[in-house]
Amino acid sequence: MVIVQKYGGTSVGSFDRIRNVASRVKALHEEGHQVAVVVSAMSGVTDRLIAMAHEMSSEPDERELDVLVSTGEQQSIALLAMALKESGVPAMSITGRQAGLRTTGSHTRARIDALDGSYTRGLLDEGKVLIVAGFQGIDTDGHIQTLGRGGSDLSAIAIAASLEADVCQILTDVDGVYTADPRVVPDARKLPEISYDELLELASVGTKVMQSRSVEFAKKFGVKFEVRSSLNNNPGTIVTEEHPNMESVVIRGVSIERSQARVTITDIPDQPGMSAKILGALAEAEVNIDMIVSNIASDGMARHSFTMNTVDLGRAQAALQPCLSAVSEKAIVETEGGIGKLSVVGIGMRSHSGVAAQMFQALGDEGINIGMISTSEIKISVTVPEDRIEDAARAVHKSFGLEQTPA
Amino acid sequence: MVIVQKYGGTSVGSFDRIRNVASRVKALHEEGHQVAVVVSAMSGVTDRLIAMAHEMSSEPDERELDVLVSTGEQQSIALLAMALKESGVPAMSITGRQAGLRTTGSHTRARIDALDGSYTRGLLDEGKVLIVAGFQGIDTDGHIQTLGRGGSDLSAIAIAASLEADVCQILTDVDGVYTADPRVVPDARKLPEISYDELLELASVGTKVMQSRSVEFAKKFGVKFEVRSSLNNNPGTIVTEEHPNMESVVIRGVSIERSQARVTITDIPDQPGMSAKILGALAEAEVNIDMIVSNIASDGMARHSFTMNTVDLGRAQAALQPCLSAVSEKAIVETEGGIGKLSVVGIGMRSHSGVAAQMFQALGDEGINIGMISTSEIKISVTVPEDRIEDAARAVHKSFGLEQTPA
Repeated sequence: MVIVQKYGGTSVGSFDRIRNVASRVKALHEEGHQVAVVVSAMSGVTDRLIAMAHEMSSEPDERELDVLVSTGEQQSIALLAMALKESGVPAMSITGRQAGLRTTGSHTRARIDALDGSYTRGLLDEGKVLIVAGFQGIDTDGHIQTLGRGGSDLSAIAIAASLEADVCQILTDVDGVYTADPRVVPDARKLPEISYDELLELASVGTKVMQSRSVEFAKKFGVKFEVRSSLNNNPGTIVTEEHPNMESVVIRGVSIERSQARVTITDIPDQPGMSAKILGALAEAEVNIDMIVSNIASDGMARHSFTMNTVDLGRAQAALQPCLSAVSEKAIVETEGGIGKLSVVGIGMRSHSGVAAQMFQALGDEGINIGMISTSEIKISVTVPEDRIEDAARAVHKSFGLEQTPA
Repeated sequence: MVIVQKYGGTSVGSFDRIRNVASRVKALHEEGHQVAVVVSAMSGVTDRLIAMAHEMSSEPDERELDVLVSTGEQQSIALLAMALKESGVPAMSITGRQAGLRTTGSHTRARIDALDGSYTRGLLDEGKVLIVAGFQGIDTDGHIQTLGRGGSDLSAIAIAASLEADVCQILTDVDGVYTADPRVVPDARKLPEISYDELLELASVGTKVMQSRSVEFAKKFGVKFEVRSSLNNNPGTIVTEEHPNMESVVIRGVSIERSQARVTITDIPDQPGMSAKILGALAEAEVNIDMIVSNIASDGMARHSFTMNTVDLGRAQAALQPCLSAVSEKAIVETEGGIGKLSVVGIGMRSHSGVAAQMFQALGDEGINIGMISTSEIKISVTVPEDRIEDAARAVHKSFGLEQTPA
């Protein structure tokens, strides 16, 4: 089999951990597999390099930042390859450039443009174990670019696609994807499989297994991958296209997000373009809006509510002030902190009605008030008081029987 | 003018020093010059990376060592480019690969094979200030290789050749090349010019301004370069082909080496191949032999003397033992430590006789005994007691009037 593995910064965070990764890779090689391993920088290294950049410049040039930061991965691939060679494995480190990882777009957050697997494929066929620098590539002019946060996952998916790998394993410090955060819901269950779309919806609400764009990239190129632990050999969770043999459930998982705040604007004249103005002002201030609920009150005035992370609240208020005074003297801005967000996600929702009703019932039975509600095709999110968010997660998890393996 | 500058690890050894280099480069740019700057890794970084490699492997793979160690220069070019951009200079960092530096030979000690200046030339013409990673290149298969000790000087000379630069300045922590080490000979004089051959002979006897192969490379490609200080703007020493307007002197400089030891082997049967056997045994033991003096005693037996650094003495003795007992029962090995070596170097020697006589006279007047003598076309070396080496240097320096600028 052709196996691609990706190890994050924590997994290669010390010399001992690198040796541990080496012995895992060695085992796969000795089982006769063709192995390509994508590696992040040792944990802490990227942050140290960025701190060095800020010693040189208050706003470091992004092209140069990429040249600097990409050395982190280059160091870890060399160290891992050395450890493997020391133990007799024919390893070879490969930079993003050598792996044929062609990028485009802005420095520090480039996109993968093209990937030519012919060189890497040839090396695998020669018997080499490839150790590939994640997070980096070169653009068509030969400049080094990095892929931004979570970029090594993206590299691994891309390498797997280019090698037509049989398996792509994302090794991390979690065991896989759970029906809920086990620290909150003790009987949460590890899922054997989850669809790309479900993981995307879970990722967007705070289950930080993987950056959304890596999942989207995998979906686009049809790369099935497995999220599993780098600390043991337990099977993890396979992320794949929805298929008939997938566990048949209505809800795949429950996800929570804390530290949310709500901004409500009332008494706005209901005129075309008003929402765009308000959202435009928030976007310009780089406020990440999450849920949006708008409607018209009985007096004909519009009412908009948004949720955002509490840290963005000050910036939001500062941006709304001038914007609103320009459109209406009467507009009122109310803010509320201490909000939590609860979401249920599942592709089964599409074919089952009553999911929202069952969720609201479970919360009602616990005496938990629901604030805003927002829905997508495979997700329902509600806001609840932040101090009840864990109770809410447990109640909903239980109500949908997520702790039980489906028949 | 097209100016190539090279800054060593000490010159970029801290954030402040990088800023200092940036302001020097900025000044050249503002004078209207086209500038390419070759940079080493920050001092200490290469050693730290090598230490990391030894954490992973007792004998780190050399290909991987190159991948690892080359990140040092990649970091310093990015930092210097950031500092320059911060001050408004259109700088751009360039790896060895991007500079078109093609290498060949063994990893960790590669040679420069070819250098294509078309890309860098184009960038200079666009107005860019290039910050080039020294010490590194890629081979024809795209693997990263490093050039070994002093490799950044080599890179600078090569870049200067490829850009047909008007000036190539090697910025270092010495002011230039002196007639003698000023710590030993207080009235030593900085030379305005020196020929490649003279610098090569001085370099080989301990005046460590520059690695021999960089000088040889410059000579081969006819690159005139200047050794000058990175701490001030004083003119340094220009290293160039011998030419008629060069200061007309017999001796260019005096050089000393300490911690030498002598091994003398007597009573060896004078048979063909005997010297080769002895030298072969020493070479195999990686003993660096310096001076070699051989002759035949009155009894027809051969007598060989070698000098070497004292640290090699033990290894030399161990290597000679089995070698000699195989050829003769009677051969005697004598060793002597506490030896210094004094050399005078000058292309003027070729056309002036009596240099050796004048040197020996000066030493004799000081009551300094001469041991071995060895000569090349432009150098005479003698051994003297190590505790008299400084007196010897001063006496010879004075005898040839090296403190005075020639008329």
